[in-house]
Amino acid sequence: MKKFKVTFEPEHKTVEVSPQTNVLQAAISAGIYLNSHCGGEGVCGRCKVILKKGRVKTQSTGRISPQEKEKGIHLACVTFIEGDAIFEIPPDSRLNLQKEALESLHLQFKDDYTETPVLAFEKFKKNYCASPLIKKLFLNLGAPTLQDRQSDWERIQQELRRRYNISASGCPLSELRRLGNLLRSSDWKITAVFDETGPKKDILYIEAGDTTTKNFGFAFDIGTTTISGQLIDLNNQKVLASKSTYNKQAQFGSDVITRIMYAAKNGGLEALHQAVVLDLNEMIQKMALEQNLDLNDITCCVCAGNTTMMHLLLKIDPTHIRLEPYVPVANFFPVFKAYEADIRINPRGLLYCVPGVASYVGGDVTAGVIWTGMYESQDLSLLIDIGTNGEVVLGNSEFLISAAASAGPAFEGSGLSCGMRAAKGAINKVKINPNSWEVSFETIGGAEPLGICGSGYIDALAEMLNAGIIDKGGKFDPKADRRIRSTTEGKEFILVEKNNSASGKDIVITEADVDNLKRAKAAIFAAVSILLVKLGLDWKRIKQIFIAGGFGTSLEVNNAIRIGLLPDIEREKFCFIGNSSLAGCRSILCSLEAFHSACEVAKKISYLELSLEPQYTENYMAALFFPHTDLSLFPGIN
Amino acid sequence: MKKFKVTFEPEHKTVEVSPQTNVLQAAISAGIYLNSHCGGEGVCGRCKVILKKGRVKTQSTGRISPQEKEKGIHLACVTFIEGDAIFEIPPDSRLNLQKEALESLHLQFKDDYTETPVLAFEKFKKNYCASPLIKKLFLNLGAPTLQDRQSDWERIQQELRRRYNISASGCPLSELRRLGNLLRSSDWKITAVFDETGPKKDILYIEAGDTTTKNFGFAFDIGTTTISGQLIDLNNQKVLASKSTYNKQAQFGSDVITRIMYAAKNGGLEALHQAVVLDLNEMIQKMALEQNLDLNDITCCVCAGNTTMMHLLLKIDPTHIRLEPYVPVANFFPVFKAYEADIRINPRGLLYCVPGVASYVGGDVTAGVIWTGMYESQDLSLLIDIGTNGEVVLGNSEFLISAAASAGPAFEGSGLSCGMRAAKGAINKVKINPNSWEVSFETIGGAEPLGICGSGYIDALAEMLNAGIIDKGGKFDPKADRRIRSTTEGKEFILVEKNNSASGKDIVITEADVDNLKRAKAAIFAAVSILLVKLGLDWKRIKQIFIAGGFGTSLEVNNAIRIGLLPDIEREKFCFIGNSSLAGCRSILCSLEAFHSACEVAKKISYLELSLEPQYTENYMAALFFPHTDLSLFPGIN
Repeated sequence: MKKFKVTFEPEHKTVEVSPQTNVLQAAISAGIYLNSHCGGEGVCGRCKVILKKGRVKTQSTGRISPQEKEKGIHLACVTFIEGDAIFEIPPDSRLNLQKEALESLHLQFKDDYTETPVLAFEKFKKNYCASPLIKKLFLNLGAPTLQDRQSDWERIQQELRRRYNISASGCPLSELRRLGNLLRSSDWKITAVFDETGPKKDILYIEAGDTTTKNFGFAFDIGTTTISGQLIDLNNQKVLASKSTYNKQAQFGSDVITRIMYAAKNGGLEALHQAVVLDLNEMIQKMALEQNLDLNDITCCVCAGNTTMMHLLLKIDPTHIRLEPYVPVANFFPVFKAYEADIRINPRGLLYCVPGVASYVGGDVTAGVIWTGMYESQDLSLLIDIGTNGEVVLGNSEFLISAAASAGPAFEGSGLSCGMRAAKGAINKVKINPNSWEVSFETIGGAEPLGICGSGYIDALAEMLNAGIIDKGGKFDPKADRRIRSTTEGKEFILVEKNNSASGKDIVITEADVDNLKRAKAAIFAAVSILLVKLGLDWKRIKQIFIAGGFGTSLEVNNAIRIGLLPDIEREKFCFIGNSSLAGCRSILCSLEAFHSACEVAKKISYLELSLEPQYTENYMAALFFPHTDLSLFPGIN
Repeated sequence: MKKFKVTFEPEHKTVEVSPQTNVLQAAISAGIYLNSHCGGEGVCGRCKVILKKGRVKTQSTGRISPQEKEKGIHLACVTFIEGDAIFEIPPDSRLNLQKEALESLHLQFKDDYTETPVLAFEKFKKNYCASPLIKKLFLNLGAPTLQDRQSDWERIQQELRRRYNISASGCPLSELRRLGNLLRSSDWKITAVFDETGPKKDILYIEAGDTTTKNFGFAFDIGTTTISGQLIDLNNQKVLASKSTYNKQAQFGSDVITRIMYAAKNGGLEALHQAVVLDLNEMIQKMALEQNLDLNDITCCVCAGNTTMMHLLLKIDPTHIRLEPYVPVANFFPVFKAYEADIRINPRGLLYCVPGVASYVGGDVTAGVIWTGMYESQDLSLLIDIGTNGEVVLGNSEFLISAAASAGPAFEGSGLSCGMRAAKGAINKVKINPNSWEVSFETIGGAEPLGICGSGYIDALAEMLNAGIIDKGGKFDPKADRRIRSTTEGKEFILVEKNNSASGKDIVITEADVDNLKRAKAAIFAAVSILLVKLGLDWKRIKQIFIAGGFGTSLEVNNAIRIGLLPDIEREKFCFIGNSSLAGCRSILCSLEAFHSACEVAKKISYLELSLEPQYTENYMAALFFPHTDLSLFPGIN
């Protein structure tokens, strides 16, 4: 079949594609990641490319202006190759624009939630007994004699019984096939490797000599937007390395619904699965390499993510998650061999998936509850995970109830004109002089400002409210003129001018951004309100509020209350716990107790489907103000 | 690389081989099976071929006479191809000479030990509760609704708990991947398939609709010489089909020691493994085809064999079985997927291996004990399995002790000048007129006589003793002339003249045959004697003697006692149980109770290594007479 050459600039990467391939697919096969929030449906207008040479056929969409058309700009997803072609990719169209910044994200882990838990969390946090999910046991068997002629395998079983009181009945055939030589070449000294989670203590594999000191695992939080991972020494629970990366699935859509729809396309599920697995394997390889570890000494992974992410990781069709009555294939997954999901650690190593609750409350939420320990406290606690979905869990040792707010990724900096993750160069603190409207700000890592992250937006909104730049409905003051610009799409407030920004562009907050953030905070606040209403409780009864998400420690509580994201209650009740999903995975990886608790907790958490609650819309509408229509909820603000 | 064409006649089969390939290997790759008792070491002289054309290099051995050399006869295993060549295979060199006779062997099963146990066995035999090792459960799940939004997998788990009180935690990832579509296309009616043997009730696989009526399994006795199998309907324990075949491993050696040595050669283990697996798969396919069954409805196999056979089946190196201190890799094997051992049934179906006791007392003996039920009786019982190894087990519900007599395969008709298995055309009953030395005989199936099987030899020996043809030392009467012929290798008694035999050759009993049989019976008798001595018991204490092996029902007890194979005790204590290993496998396949008993029994049976017993040689020497040197043991014979 005829093939066309497609070259992407400025990388000058060329791929051969079949006729009628769209430019987005061509870019993917060239290893270039474009923004594609809508998953290639021609809707979001994010995957703009500039045709420099060649012939294409394009579908018209409202996303390309006549001026852009003149410059040769096309939407990659609806533009089809009809001959050799050259395209230029504008920086804004790139998914990995912030790659460099993101790479440094893991530096934050140390401060955030690894070595020393933040704020007052230490006093709540549950401490689990150390007992890793994978155990390595050294056995000095001694050689058989004419007086002691047990078979090789029974010799191992007997020593396990005698020395460790373990009754092992299973062992893979492949290991039995190696056993005769292995025992005799290792002077009858071996290490047996076990899965500790099941009712059966089966041997996973056997190694020559004493390898008990080499037992490492990975904890992964698989977010819709970002994947974070940590390499843990299972012998001492130490975090050896931490990394984050954008989820490469973003090239197929920015939210779970778009991804589920993409999975239904021919080859879509496989592509989504391979994208996330590539991310995990790259992280595993990099961190293992940095620590000079053999991949064979990585014995397991614990992964948590929303229910759709877990389906895609396991290459299980997620279609019915988005179709009434919204049923996933599984919330509780059995333990799998990591290789079954294409994860490259020890070929006999295991993959544990943290159990989820429902289609829109996944294992990442369970892991968060595990990390907080709120399921063991008699006090009423609230966990708010301000990620792409905005899940909330309310409860104590008696009950736990959850909901998913569908808040969208605004507080992750996604979908906003200058939004970015809480990474190096992100504006995370903002002050605005109420009189002069002069702006001062801080960035993560003290770098030149590149964009605004969640906590920066919260500060900016609160300060804009205080300065009267926007009103409580989020509308820009029509009389305002300083630092305010009007565009075809509405007004925008200039936070940083282009000559001071790292990107060379103005860093702004638009009316659309304000609206977006307002809807996100309203969704979360309304979700918690409904849970309280359902239980006949009010905000005052809550003893702790755990705030999880990419904010890190920099969120200004008063500002979050000012905009109505958080309730106006005692400030000492708030506790920022960072990526609690990742931290929970780490607890589970290192503790059988946490593993079993996660199973119990996931069963115990009930789920409230907000779309079936008539009162939810009412509550949501009431929260579409800064801070709220019901000011009695916010006595400190007038 | 240069290749030579080698053609085998009369099949006219041609294969291409590399220079220096030996003729035995060339024959194997042409699918022609030659006798090779010694496993290709140039020792046994069984693989004679006639060079018709071409150039070879041969090693001289004492096995080819000058006359044979002149006729172009070579030993295939030490003759190497040096150019295109044509060979003729004489019938005597063929392993499958008796193929046709053997094919009909399964006809015998019905009489022997399938539908109606023989003789008085019914009164001893243990009846196990029917509960197959693999269970199929039908589940009518009902579709999810907005009020009942459990995940697909939890829906299955809940129904299993509710309806069957089963807590299933495991399910293969491949099955979860199919689940969404499977449930929705089958109207939420499915069948879940379980392994019943483990502590964990994990789902093996899931099928659409109600397939509970389709649950079939195979029982296999894997003998060194013969493999016997039965296809069982696990829903009603009915035997649907039975078959036997020669073990194709025989081309690599006739006994376990030769096979173990062959396994150590490059590619040897793989060749031995593939040979037995090919036998099993051919039998499975044939029987399934005859019964019009889909291989996917075959859910499991239960296999028993001596310890070496089990290692070779599982492709586990058996080397250390024959090296001091004689340690196998395993006696108890975990449950494997059948495909792991290359057995072709349902790809998720299981392989259960009946546990063995020691290197020379395997799972076939355990299965025999299970079949007899002797481990539950207060009475002292003796099980003698007169196969290639000659294993014996003595005991009751209190204790069980075993030994392997290394009797050799004489009573299986192997290694004797006119020996054959108890198959169609085998002489199985012999009478000799003590005065005229006229011979009368019966053959299996009433066919023209082809050779002599074990029971025929026992009759013949006893009658020759009674007629004075041989003395109690096994020597031929020097004055005898009728029906006796002298050859270069000694005397031989002509049982059937060539014009009356199916093979066109005289059917004879040679001095070497008599000696061989004498040593075999002495080994078995001495083994039992030692066990009795060890326990301070005598023959009279034995309440039942179970005789297992290829004799079928035709063994004449008085004759077996006359030659000293069996003790001279009350005749009603003897019970012939045929292939008790296969029958035991069938019990295990159909009964979880029998499965668990087999595990307990194999642990309970202690093993006496005869080669370490100084008294054994003494006892063996004493038994090298017909019936014995100690005639007080045989009061009925004088």
